[in-house]
Amino acid sequence: MISGKTGSTSAGELSNWNRFSSLFYPHSVTVVGASPDFKKLGYHCMKSLIMSGFPGKIYPVHPRLPEIDGFKAYSSVKSVPGKVDLAIIAVRSSLVPQLLNECAEIGVKGVVLITAGFKEIEDESGAALQNEIATIADRADIKVIGPNTFGFVNLHANLNASFTPEFSLTPKGDISLVSQSGGFCHLMAPLAMLEQVGMSKIIGIGNRCNVEFADILEYMADDPDTRVIMIYVEGTDNARRLFEVASRVTGKKPIVAFKAGRFSLGDKAAYSHTGSMAGKHEIYTAAFKQAGIVVADSPTELLDVARALSLCPLPRGNRVAILSGQAGPSIIMSDVCEQNGLLLADFSSETTERVHLLLPPLAMRSNPIDMGPAWYDSETIRKVVEVVLADGNTDGVLLYAAYASANRPLLKELTTVLKSRAHGRPVVCCFPSPPGVWVEEKQEFVESGVALYPTPERTARAMCGLVRYARERREE
Amino acid sequence: MISGKTGSTSAGELSNWNRFSSLFYPHSVTVVGASPDFKKLGYHCMKSLIMSGFPGKIYPVHPRLPEIDGFKAYSSVKSVPGKVDLAIIAVRSSLVPQLLNECAEIGVKGVVLITAGFKEIEDESGAALQNEIATIADRADIKVIGPNTFGFVNLHANLNASFTPEFSLTPKGDISLVSQSGGFCHLMAPLAMLEQVGMSKIIGIGNRCNVEFADILEYMADDPDTRVIMIYVEGTDNARRLFEVASRVTGKKPIVAFKAGRFSLGDKAAYSHTGSMAGKHEIYTAAFKQAGIVVADSPTELLDVARALSLCPLPRGNRVAILSGQAGPSIIMSDVCEQNGLLLADFSSETTERVHLLLPPLAMRSNPIDMGPAWYDSETIRKVVEVVLADGNTDGVLLYAAYASANRPLLKELTTVLKSRAHGRPVVCCFPSPPGVWVEEKQEFVESGVALYPTPERTARAMCGLVRYARERREE
Repeated sequence: MISGKTGSTSAGELSNWNRFSSLFYPHSVTVVGASPDFKKLGYHCMKSLIMSGFPGKIYPVHPRLPEIDGFKAYSSVKSVPGKVDLAIIAVRSSLVPQLLNECAEIGVKGVVLITAGFKEIEDESGAALQNEIATIADRADIKVIGPNTFGFVNLHANLNASFTPEFSLTPKGDISLVSQSGGFCHLMAPLAMLEQVGMSKIIGIGNRCNVEFADILEYMADDPDTRVIMIYVEGTDNARRLFEVASRVTGKKPIVAFKAGRFSLGDKAAYSHTGSMAGKHEIYTAAFKQAGIVVADSPTELLDVARALSLCPLPRGNRVAILSGQAGPSIIMSDVCEQNGLLLADFSSETTERVHLLLPPLAMRSNPIDMGPAWYDSETIRKVVEVVLADGNTDGVLLYAAYASANRPLLKELTTVLKSRAHGRPVVCCFPSPPGVWVEEKQEFVESGVALYPTPERTARAMCGLVRYARERREE
Repeated sequence: MISGKTGSTSAGELSNWNRFSSLFYPHSVTVVGASPDFKKLGYHCMKSLIMSGFPGKIYPVHPRLPEIDGFKAYSSVKSVPGKVDLAIIAVRSSLVPQLLNECAEIGVKGVVLITAGFKEIEDESGAALQNEIATIADRADIKVIGPNTFGFVNLHANLNASFTPEFSLTPKGDISLVSQSGGFCHLMAPLAMLEQVGMSKIIGIGNRCNVEFADILEYMADDPDTRVIMIYVEGTDNARRLFEVASRVTGKKPIVAFKAGRFSLGDKAAYSHTGSMAGKHEIYTAAFKQAGIVVADSPTELLDVARALSLCPLPRGNRVAILSGQAGPSIIMSDVCEQNGLLLADFSSETTERVHLLLPPLAMRSNPIDMGPAWYDSETIRKVVEVVLADGNTDGVLLYAAYASANRPLLKELTTVLKSRAHGRPVVCCFPSPPGVWVEEKQEFVESGVALYPTPERTARAMCGLVRYARERREE
């Protein structure tokens, strides 16, 4: 456990918090089911640990082999010589109860149970087996991620406790994802890599034998490495507790949710009850909103809103300015903003005057400001941006400019003003460009925390999410 | 003009068609306003022509310089020695009428008028000037793209007649874009580059002095290099003609439209009339649909649906199969499908039996088929895909599988079945993966025309667009 990471919760919860902290920041990890065979998930779990550069002890467990991936292997959990904080288990389901008992004996604090074949299978023996392991784990106070999970990755601990080594390539940041579906994590992590969104923890909670959404949210409320929480929910057995905990957490940190299963739940039986499913979905989203959770309409929007919340100060209201080097995309952005209840700010008379002096007579100078006629005069564009950012009547700014070779100097010109946080307002930007141009400029923006998006509608939706969370906070 | 490209329309229209063909496939181009100064748009127009590898004659026109970019320059349009098919004009607006007269004298067939300062400016002198040039152009039967345009690119003629050289990097294909906004083209072309969507022509029609949406659509109906047409519309003076022409064109080729300006039209005056604007927007989209145009909700959806229409056979109905290596994303896809009126196909009993034999007992085997329990058994996944593709009860297939290192062999295994067109059904795929893995496999898919999308919701929306167009075609 990394020192100094203690929660500020009450005594009873503190213990839970410390348990989770040992799970997410372990000193030592055992992989039960470690294997030299590519076709075994334990093979990939070992690769993940190694690729993540995990600095603690690694103990592969294999019934016969003396060594795996250069690490001394042990024939059983109980023969591991040192203390074990986290056990990653990828063996067949019938072996799991006995293994958990052994983990309890040696004082393991957390388990990632990758093994499938529990509650999710059609045979009721699966549910029985899951109850059995939950009882063992609860008695020993072992926190179990899973069963039927891909695991988790904690980029702040250089720990990839999953069967996908490439998760270690995700950029490090302060957004955590708690997902009911491992498949969803395998969608979001590559998106975060591609778009350079900084992540903290990515957790697939699987069948949730004794760790539910609410438990992780409680932990994350005091996790110093998490600033924004994304959740992917299909459904949960204890929705009431989820909403209660979420209500508390959203007062401290934003939660953004994406709920799947609006229409069917993916099988024919559920499909024939579409109506009730849709009703259930509506109840979920209403409860989310009441708990102060920002609800996203798609996986992409989930990531976009989380990124804005991670990078931007909160807007004080819903009055935005839209600045665009091209008129078309500014219309797209204002469509999205107005559809979501945002207002186009009335600029102060001083701002209006200064913009009038900067833009040629043929410019549309109200809000949105079409900077089109000056689009390849980077200095003027920068001055307009500065003037609008200084306007006390705006709560946030959307800035759009597409590359067109004549405006190649633009992003360099905008660097100082965009990197400055002096204005205290959220600024979301969209700078579409062909591959190979504006690359270094955008990289500098990403590294300095400027919120960049690839399309005008995603840029606008990110701002709408920011405004929604800020409004919920004010209304509390 | 490339030989053999003649339209099948009547005599009067044929002449128009040939005029446009000369504009889009010229033998010779003059750049009026060509310049060695980076700050002049004519500088960038010359770079564009050169970067596109245009094989015809290039005649820069400059009042004094003897040479620009290695090409002999001429002091006026009239002093150009050869025949000129296309003139790209980037000089100040007051010079344009005289220049157009000179173009008429030497028999220029088409003009790209990049110059701004016409109808779009607040001063009424702009509208007057635009009327003046429209009269000159009409009299000489010169087709004018613009004024106030970035130009166009025709990837099939190696012709970049715009001020943005990088447009030449767009992959060549059979989707054309006709856009009211140059800014929109500068958003879509980089998207097409990034996602490797093959484009034919990208045209910014600007202020439309004598070439409207309808004219280009009429031309494209018989353009052998265009299979799918995307349009971006904010508003148009002659909507009735647009809808009439579009109704005819959609019987031959799909048109996908994105309409901006749902709420405001981007300035304060229009904003205060939001109600009427929204009404206008509804009328537009209703008329689009009546004309058989597929309406997209965002720029991204516009591109996604066009890509599906370009690559896939049309579905015969609305019954789809959803196959997924992970349950979560299959729920996301079925949500989108059902929200858009698609049905989850009932498999034949033969299909069901064969799937039962392939998947382990713990799989969800109805539709969607969760291939989860076999997710790292590539051969089984391939067999399930083959069985479902052969089912006569399905009109289209959505296939999802995320990379997870244990399933690294999957895409290779799927190559033959996905590249085969024998099943005659549209298949849309989503294979999320971290950078650096599945790269060659995906590249092979892209090159062989498999429709790939980056997220499950975009995959599903693309299928919905296909089904919508096919339904319109059947109902005609």
